[in-house]
Amino acid sequence: MSSTEKTANVAIVGAGLVGALNAIYFAKRGWKVDLFELRKDMRLPEVKANQRGKSINLALSERGLSALRNSGLDLDQLILEAAVPLRARMVHIGKEGRQMSQAYGKKDQHINAVDRARLNEELLDIADKLDNITIYFEHNLLQTNMDKGELIFTVGSEKKTYQSDLIVGADGAYSRTRAQLMRRIRMDYAQEYIDTAYCELTMPPIKNAGGEDDFALDPNHLHIWPRHTFMLIALPNPDKTFTCTLFMPFSMFENIDSDSKVMDFFREHFNDSIPLIGEKRLLQEYSSNPRGALISIKCKPYHYKDKAMIIGDAAHAMVPFYGQGMNCGFQDIQVLHETLDKHNVGAELSADGKVSGLQKALDEYSIERSKDAHAICDLAMYNHYEMQSAVTSPLYLARKRLEGTLHHYFPKTVIPLYTMVSFTTIRYSEAIRRWNHQTWWLNAAAATSVSVVAATAVGLGLRYYEPMIKSISKYACRT
Amino acid sequence: MSSTEKTANVAIVGAGLVGALNAIYFAKRGWKVDLFELRKDMRLPEVKANQRGKSINLALSERGLSALRNSGLDLDQLILEAAVPLRARMVHIGKEGRQMSQAYGKKDQHINAVDRARLNEELLDIADKLDNITIYFEHNLLQTNMDKGELIFTVGSEKKTYQSDLIVGADGAYSRTRAQLMRRIRMDYAQEYIDTAYCELTMPPIKNAGGEDDFALDPNHLHIWPRHTFMLIALPNPDKTFTCTLFMPFSMFENIDSDSKVMDFFREHFNDSIPLIGEKRLLQEYSSNPRGALISIKCKPYHYKDKAMIIGDAAHAMVPFYGQGMNCGFQDIQVLHETLDKHNVGAELSADGKVSGLQKALDEYSIERSKDAHAICDLAMYNHYEMQSAVTSPLYLARKRLEGTLHHYFPKTVIPLYTMVSFTTIRYSEAIRRWNHQTWWLNAAAATSVSVVAATAVGLGLRYYEPMIKSISKYACRT
Repeated sequence: MSSTEKTANVAIVGAGLVGALNAIYFAKRGWKVDLFELRKDMRLPEVKANQRGKSINLALSERGLSALRNSGLDLDQLILEAAVPLRARMVHIGKEGRQMSQAYGKKDQHINAVDRARLNEELLDIADKLDNITIYFEHNLLQTNMDKGELIFTVGSEKKTYQSDLIVGADGAYSRTRAQLMRRIRMDYAQEYIDTAYCELTMPPIKNAGGEDDFALDPNHLHIWPRHTFMLIALPNPDKTFTCTLFMPFSMFENIDSDSKVMDFFREHFNDSIPLIGEKRLLQEYSSNPRGALISIKCKPYHYKDKAMIIGDAAHAMVPFYGQGMNCGFQDIQVLHETLDKHNVGAELSADGKVSGLQKALDEYSIERSKDAHAICDLAMYNHYEMQSAVTSPLYLARKRLEGTLHHYFPKTVIPLYTMVSFTTIRYSEAIRRWNHQTWWLNAAAATSVSVVAATAVGLGLRYYEPMIKSISKYACRT
Repeated sequence: MSSTEKTANVAIVGAGLVGALNAIYFAKRGWKVDLFELRKDMRLPEVKANQRGKSINLALSERGLSALRNSGLDLDQLILEAAVPLRARMVHIGKEGRQMSQAYGKKDQHINAVDRARLNEELLDIADKLDNITIYFEHNLLQTNMDKGELIFTVGSEKKTYQSDLIVGADGAYSRTRAQLMRRIRMDYAQEYIDTAYCELTMPPIKNAGGEDDFALDPNHLHIWPRHTFMLIALPNPDKTFTCTLFMPFSMFENIDSDSKVMDFFREHFNDSIPLIGEKRLLQEYSSNPRGALISIKCKPYHYKDKAMIIGDAAHAMVPFYGQGMNCGFQDIQVLHETLDKHNVGAELSADGKVSGLQKALDEYSIERSKDAHAICDLAMYNHYEMQSAVTSPLYLARKRLEGTLHHYFPKTVIPLYTMVSFTTIRYSEAIRRWNHQTWWLNAAAATSVSVVAATAVGLGLRYYEPMIKSISKYACRT
């Protein structure tokens, strides 16, 4: 860089998972990074003591891992060290809690339960070590002037103004940056709440034969108690606990409002979980833990000229049923930086104060990435249905087996949707397109009746597809 | 009312058309009304001098008239005195500007061009005369505490707090009340901008044979120059001018950026309008008048308990192509007050500070009215297509004639959609349902082939329906 050239500066609003990783990517690109966070530094002892609130475990799969890997800092290895591999779903059936394991993919394929707080802390530690990143905590975004690259924060009782060449909002589903962006551009925006609320419960470790703490359930599974209009799930944590989440309509939470009703409800539907959670803890946590609402948000475009953009949940909040929220946010970052590379976006400001290629890159990112974000938002909504109901249906299981078998023999032609979403980095929109194509292909196979047996098997599978396709197109339209 | 009973108080935010008429309705119901307006009193001479900006003419049809009539104050008669009746569309075809008149309905059916400012002033004058309404101008809503019924406004450099039993947001498409409501309830919300911008131009009066001002075009028509991706329309004003509105994609506005390009464009597409607008005025207004964006907004629910609600554009902004924005907002008021009547909502606060029946009435209003608002938002979007393109298509005209003839012989079975929307108060959602049913009925008639001629005629009509149905279902889904 010649001495007359100035380095471009990015202001990232939100130092959560996506904000922190994006800061690292921009720093590696040579930009000067200011990373702003509303809350206190989560690594401070007094903050750690009061942690909890947000869901503490997340499922990290290939898209997220790929983005961590591509940072060039072996972040994927660092994170996987403390992750718990999840190879399958464990479906708990009936009152007696019969368990049925359903593999997510091939033998070597698994997703990873990671601790949200630890992952965020690791990313902040790394960001702290990079010279060109400055982190500001307790900075509450008040206003932006995007044309001037100006950000005004409330800091304690003061207002502080910062300057940047690019503003990036990574401030979550209720993004303040997005609200500012909506005042500047004609943004199409849709938010939708589902009728389901959630409440978290903790399943403590048990003592194993050697007297040591151990998991109360098989830790290499994501446990599900599917009960049609409601369900309980459990994900393992590295400290041998499980975080259980009860998903159920708001009205049911309101009706089940006494200790006796809670116990009756759990005995009826999740009987095998009661001794594992413990009756006292169950009642205490059910009554005191908050009910969370679940929102799905789609919007476009994501940017204003070469001045501002949103990323991660700020751009696309989704219901948590495909385990892709963080993975999609991390992939946003990788795709963004690949698009910047494609347009040769460097770290130097030209004489007119512009970064060459930046606007074209953001135009392209905004158009292309919104298609994929909308696709995964739709799939996540669909998977709510699958997790609550379909996983116990014989037709669903028949289709799964059929798809698995076909995938074995035609690994490039038939790839189960879950595999494409969780174990590849194929664009989400492309995954849906291929999956629709596969459905057609399976249909054609059935029509030409290669053999009666094959046709029957395929037919069984296809009958299951129908509501799935209908459900997906329902969510997919107008976006 | 006994001496111990207190009168309920409503705070209406926004003294535009819907806010002012709703204030009158609540006052007639016996409530104490505080009506808050962000701007200065539009009736002040200094404000009148600077008027303009917002579209100044509107089409008042049966739904709006019905709401004015039902106020019990003969408001419909008052408003119609200064309205210009529009009996038909006048389609301007080709370079030579050949004119084709298309009646909106039967001979006695017409819509009415009214002056937005005058209508608003009349409503404010009437509100001023009612003892139980207080109007506050230059009150900028800052915040609400809906549980406490508290509204905080910025007034000059001060903050002022007001108290109410019910908060009603009638503050338009960019409603501050709605934003406050969204912080309190799980609101499904979708906004969508269309790619079309608009720019207003004035067509001055001409001198008639007697040397007096007269309309430059037939005043009993809504004039349209449909040109597929763009169009010009003209509506008459009582002062003998026409307000012309050019609707066209943002990119076209950006490309047509010099006087010579403007003249070339007008000569090519709207040649007959040039002498009527005047070349100098055309160039001056095209370059200096703002480009407006067009937004469509759907949301639900509209209320929070018995504490707050939104109405009019705050609840449902629509593109202007069906001329129903104000009519729908006025009908909101009539439907709201009919629902309050149904639940026997009076003006007295009970001992616990509640208004009996209010919450049930708002629950019902919110569920039922949102269906109709969503329906008219979809239809307005569809009519954009119809006005730009279909009005010159032979198939469209064949269908129109067929529908008109069938309506004549079966007046209760076949009612053209436009007639149901503009000349009746049938629920919008019911109008679409009936219209779909009619389509099916016409289809069945074609299938049973009562006669070859009839079938051919119906077939011609139906071929036109298809894109229409597809287009409407496209906009109708997920809402």
